[in-house]
Amino acid sequence: MKILLIGANGKLGTAVHEALAARGHEIVTVGRTGGDLQYDITVAAQVTELYDRAGQIDAVVSAAGDVPYKPVTEMTPEDYTSAFHGKVLSQIDLVRQGVARIAERGSFTLISGVLAHEPIPTSSAASMANGALEAFVRAAAIEIAPQRINAISPTVFTESLAEYGDFFPGVPPVPVADVAQTYVRSVEGGQTGQVYAL
Amino acid sequence: MKILLIGANGKLGTAVHEALAARGHEIVTVGRTGGDLQYDITVAAQVTELYDRAGQIDAVVSAAGDVPYKPVTEMTPEDYTSAFHGKVLSQIDLVRQGVARIAERGSFTLISGVLAHEPIPTSSAASMANGALEAFVRAAAIEIAPQRINAISPTVFTESLAEYGDFFPGVPPVPVADVAQTYVRSVEGGQTGQVYAL
Repeated sequence: MKILLIGANGKLGTAVHEALAARGHEIVTVGRTGGDLQYDITVAAQVTELYDRAGQIDAVVSAAGDVPYKPVTEMTPEDYTSAFHGKVLSQIDLVRQGVARIAERGSFTLISGVLAHEPIPTSSAASMANGALEAFVRAAAIEIAPQRINAISPTVFTESLAEYGDFFPGVPPVPVADVAQTYVRSVEGGQTGQVYAL
Repeated sequence: MKILLIGANGKLGTAVHEALAARGHEIVTVGRTGGDLQYDITVAAQVTELYDRAGQIDAVVSAAGDVPYKPVTEMTPEDYTSAFHGKVLSQIDLVRQGVARIAERGSFTLISGVLAHEPIPTSSAASMANGALEAFVRAAAIEIAPQRINAISPTVFTESLAEYGDFFPGVPPVPVADVAQTYVRSVEGGQTGQVYAL
């Protein structure tokens, strides 16, 4: 398949790239500042340009999402709006504009995260964004069939424990390679409307 | 308790008003165009004014949220943004600004809805908003204790079947009075971070 990979330069994006390439897929990497194509998916017009430029695509996979972390009482409306634009509306736009662009039986695989269901202090914007994304995926799935859409919802990566482990005390981490395999499962499998939590 | 009731004029708000008043609480009703106090909670500055005006409050309960319904492919970024402002950011703002205003052991009870988990065609913005709200509630709960926060997530009301029943074929409806009792449960009970689905 020809697969558009958004957020290709991060720790997760790199692993997803490897996992999908190992399955023989043709990957077109997209990033704000790196990758085969450089676009900012938080801007709707850039998503349009991205699809124009990418040509025929079988699957869109996203590993991109930015959200702020602060206590609820220090958050501003702009912080929540930033999380909404940075992780929710941006990924929704890949779907909204992508339905008419990708293959008839193509798929979208978006990124959520454990904080939707297992919050940590300071995660209210991240949790909000992940909960929004997961509910959108369930809703979009029943409209866009036979195209498919799933979300990947990982916990903290084993490879990120040094950096983020203190925020997830006692939480079993997941190797990023396992998360990447779940993207393969979503892209090549038959399920839709799923939130793959791991 | 002195309770601020947002969205007091709707079908649900009216029932919540009755249920809380029957329990002996003092209710201050808030609406855009009706109620004891008239404010639009989608505007942060009006939420500030609302709290200034309301004085000491023990609990905030919300039955207010507006979202657009359209197929995914007919939605615009503005539609999703409208849902975010109309149901998510507005209710988040009640909490964000309310934490410093309401009683030390006060509570927030917000409105979500069944579409977070059981979508219908055209509900992607509503589902997104409800999922966002529920995840926010779980996240905020662990930060604001001993203040509490819960969400009420009702299915279609028995009283709304004539209007909306065709959108929920075969779905068991719930009497709005039962939903209102769940607000009583949230306000007077001890739980926090809960999504009461009914």
